Amino acid sequence: MDIYAKAKQATYNLIRDDDKNSVAATVFDVTIISLIVVNVLLVVLDTFSGFPPGVLALFRNIEVFSVIVFSVEYAARLWTADKLYPDKSGAAARVRYALSFMAIVDLLAIMPFYLPFVFPVDLRILRMVRLLRLLRLLKVNRYTSALSTVGNVIKRKASQLISSTLVVFILMVIASVLMYSVECEAQPLVFQNAFSGLWWAIATLTTVGYGDIYPITAAGKLFSAVIALLGIGIVAIPTGIISSGFVENIDAERSTEEKHYCPYCGEKVD
Amino acid sequence: MDIYAKAKQATYNLIRDDDKNSVAATVFDVTIISLIVVNVLLVVLDTFSGFPPGVLALFRNIEVFSVIVFSVEYAARLWTADKLYPDKSGAAARVRYALSFMAIVDLLAIMPFYLPFVFPVDLRILRMVRLLRLLRLLKVNRYTSALSTVGNVIKRKASQLISSTLVVFILMVIASVLMYSVECEAQPLVFQNAFSGLWWAIATLTTVGYGDIYPITAAGKLFSAVIALLGIGIVAIPTGIISSGFVENIDAERSTEEKHYCPYCGEKVD
Amino acid sequence: MDIYAKAKQATYNLIRDDDKNSVAATVFDVTIISLIVVNVLLVVLDTFSGFPPGVLALFRNIEVFSVIVFSVEYAARLWTADKLYPDKSGAAARVRYALSFMAIVDLLAIMPFYLPFVFPVDLRILRMVRLLRLLRLLKVNRYTSALSTVGNVIKRKASQLISSTLVVFILMVIASVLMYSVECEAQPLVFQNAFSGLWWAIATLTTVGYGDIYPITAAGKLFSAVIALLGIGIVAIPTGIISSGFVENIDAERSTEEKHYCPYCGEKVD
Amino acid sequence: MDIYAKAKQATYNLIRDDDKNSVAATVFDVTIISLIVVNVLLVVLDTFSGFPPGVLALFRNIEVFSVIVFSVEYAARLWTADKLYPDKSGAAARVRYALSFMAIVDLLAIMPFYLPFVFPVDLRILRMVRLLRLLRLLKVNRYTSALSTVGNVIKRKASQLISSTLVVFILMVIASVLMYSVECEAQPLVFQNAFSGLWWAIATLTTVGYGDIYPITAAGKLFSAVIALLGIGIVAIPTGIISSGFVENIDAERSTEEKHYCPYCGEKVD
Repeated sequence: MDIYAKAKQATYNLIRDDDKNSVAATVFDVTIISLIVVNVLLVVLDTFSGFPPGVLALFRNIEVFSVIVFSVEYAARLWTADKLYPDKSGAAARVRYALSFMAIVDLLAIMPFYLPFVFPVDLRILRMVRLLRLLRLLKVNRYTSALSTVGNVIKRKASQLISSTLVVFILMVIASVLMYSVECEAQPLVFQNAFSGLWWAIATLTTVGYGDIYPITAAGKLFSAVIALLGIGIVAIPTGIISSGFVENIDAERSTEEKHYCPYCGEKVD
Repeated sequence: MDIYAKAKQATYNLIRDDDKNSVAATVFDVTIISLIVVNVLLVVLDTFSGFPPGVLALFRNIEVFSVIVFSVEYAARLWTADKLYPDKSGAAARVRYALSFMAIVDLLAIMPFYLPFVFPVDLRILRMVRLLRLLRLLKVNRYTSALSTVGNVIKRKASQLISSTLVVFILMVIASVLMYSVECEAQPLVFQNAFSGLWWAIATLTTVGYGDIYPITAAGKLFSAVIALLGIGIVAIPTGIISSGFVENIDAERSTEEKHYCPYCGEKVD
Repeated sequence: MDIYAKAKQATYNLIRDDDKNSVAATVFDVTIISLIVVNVLLVVLDTFSGFPPGVLALFRNIEVFSVIVFSVEYAARLWTADKLYPDKSGAAARVRYALSFMAIVDLLAIMPFYLPFVFPVDLRILRMVRLLRLLRLLKVNRYTSALSTVGNVIKRKASQLISSTLVVFILMVIASVLMYSVECEAQPLVFQNAFSGLWWAIATLTTVGYGDIYPITAAGKLFSAVIALLGIGIVAIPTGIISSGFVENIDAERSTEEKHYCPYCGEKVD
Repeated sequence: MDIYAKAKQATYNLIRDDDKNSVAATVFDVTIISLIVVNVLLVVLDTFSGFPPGVLALFRNIEVFSVIVFSVEYAARLWTADKLYPDKSGAAARVRYALSFMAIVDLLAIMPFYLPFVFPVDLRILRMVRLLRLLRLLKVNRYTSALSTVGNVIKRKASQLISSTLVVFILMVIASVLMYSVECEAQPLVFQNAFSGLWWAIATLTTVGYGDIYPITAAGKLFSAVIALLGIGIVAIPTGIISSGFVENIDAERSTEEKHYCPYCGEKVD
């Protein structure tokens, strides 16, 4: 094993996303996560005004430093991609890695810094992509499997959830047009068109109720009462679906365990 | 098989509501669904003002075209109804189809266009019935069985849900009269009568809370706190009922599967 | 069997609260329920102003008629109480009936009409007790058993629900004092004292959010965010408890059915 | 057994936190709980203004009396700590007790009274710690085991709940920056920076909806609709997780009971 292969293996051990044993790898992870959090804070702080020039310069320096670190990290991940996909050749592994969701997010997160050098364009909006790098928080800890359980339950119940959502959507459109018809004369400035009705329907069915739009006529209030009560179903039905999905999951886990031995007589069962 | 029977069979294959194999049937479905969605958009856009005459003319042309297509579709469904109900004679099958929920919706959706020719009346309000045609979205996809599962759960738990709702309704009426008594002196313009109290009770129990009506006296706030906390039960109880319905469903499906073989000894069970 | 006993049996058959077979008993039930609903509407309508004298006179006549019918019904139930409790003597059965919850409600519902004749006092507030007679709606239909299932689930889970509520209550008191401390300087008129803080805590934890009171300082908003997120738990935990109660119920029903026969071999089990 | 040991045993029997048999211990518990509730009321009432000097003096006297009782109680618990931890020596038991959560709360609750005698400092804020003594309400009743069941369910599902919360948090940060970008031009005073966006995201995702901040542009409303609908998932997913935890708990309890006897053949199983 030559020095090149050794360096690559060491780099891969440092950066791969799993529960680390080495101190160096843990330090590396904590550093990257901290830099991501700091960069997210910078995106948030950039929306504030009134910072003195010195602070803005500090912000800029932190950003330059972060982008350099992220670029090196991206290059290292690309370089060691053949360790991640051992059954692929070097080039194929790199292409596959570059097309993975997290790699695209990583690339989009550093690109807004480099692109202005190539052609003059304001890509500040793309800096928000850095927020997505927060998803890496989920990759490097023991919550991944818990999250994948949650994801599996939602995926398994997707068709029930989607069809319920479709019914809700149809109900919303019908409710919004009806509410507009009922209230447009009493509140022409509030219920300007059916789009206002849709905004009302969403605020009511989700029980957010900002209070910027609500019926004032008796007919509108009666109709709103019906929709608000249906809104309870909007919460209850998906909750019931997801609950049953989690219960099913528990049952499945248990029956996998129980498969091998009869719980009553203790005999082995195939 | 003569040409008439062949044409009828071909038409039926094209329009029947199931998972299609032929390209033509899929194209037909997508066309009809698109026209329905466009017509719903037209009903929504009609509530906006300020469109130039050219756009309004376009809207009118789209509507005429849609109604013609929907009319042909309705006629075709009526014609091929004996294929849908093979055990009925031609006339009986057509009457049965014409009285089905979706057929009535389809008829009501095209009628507002034709009726003004017969006798002069403004049936614009009936155009909203077209929104109900959105329900067809649910018929032509694989979500039908998922939705029927949801529907079955709600149906099986109907008596529990209805009796809980009845208790909530009684609670609401009592709360609204009490709240009116407590607040009518402090806010005579807001709590004008017990109907205002009912509107407050609905906004509070469903946790919508628009903010147009709320107690300002100490007694009213204490009472409101009790009602708001009960409002959590209003969400928790139906959710619990529906959750248990979905869990029961899973158990039922599993026990159907398990019926044929003993899970422990593997022997066949009748 | 003499004529007195026969009349008593006939009266009892007419008024007892179960699923009726005779047409007369059903007519009697529908009449009483209708009168109760009409009286509840009268209590609600009395809070409106501006009715012409003729309508007010009609309201008064309906009330007089209802009270007479309710009085006769109450007397009849008292008279036939020994049929309801066959194991008790006449006087004991009547006392026991008179002390039952529904009998007290019935008496309180007619008393405000008679009392002013005895001594001059305004008992209009007591008329609200008539609203409680709405509970009879639950007695005369097939939803009783469904409701008792819901009641049993809540009763069985009472200690879990109460102890959770206690934690929520403690959290609310602490949150209200803290929020008052944080916001009292910025909004002295809104957060006047810890009671205002409690009102805010209830509106936030139950997610009602009327919008009459909310933090405006950064510290207050951060704290409010924590409380609002905890508010999700306030909904999720009782819902989870009640859900598990309903699931347990289903399991219990099934295991009762299964007790008698082995589900696998079909043999009878004691 | 000398008089000292007897006195200590009697004191321990009086103050230990379990279901009491003796009348004296119950009276002691009720007294302490009442004093705690009265002190919490005092902390709440202190935020009100306008009490006459006489009432304020009464408040002060109640506080002095309570602190003396609480101090004696604290000393007694410290003294009898070796009864609570019989396997430890006297000093070790006392240190262990003094470092327990409830003991620290008890000490912090009495300290703000004594400290000003030692060095002049305003520790009124520390008086709020007395609110935490309300937690003792949970220790001296039969709801403890119910509460520990609830706690165990949440603990067992902690990793799923935390990872879901992390996803929600990431979603919130992204939503807040996006909403700020969309609305900052239309409402520069309302959406001043991304922190305002975060405040909006929390009010929307938790469905509180105070109504102090909401989008007014069409793009903002559409985006808000998406977030509000996701807010339903924010409630549904933890509820589903907690529901399944409670169901799992029931199953575990049942299988513990069932372990000893086969439910079908009735034979004892080890």
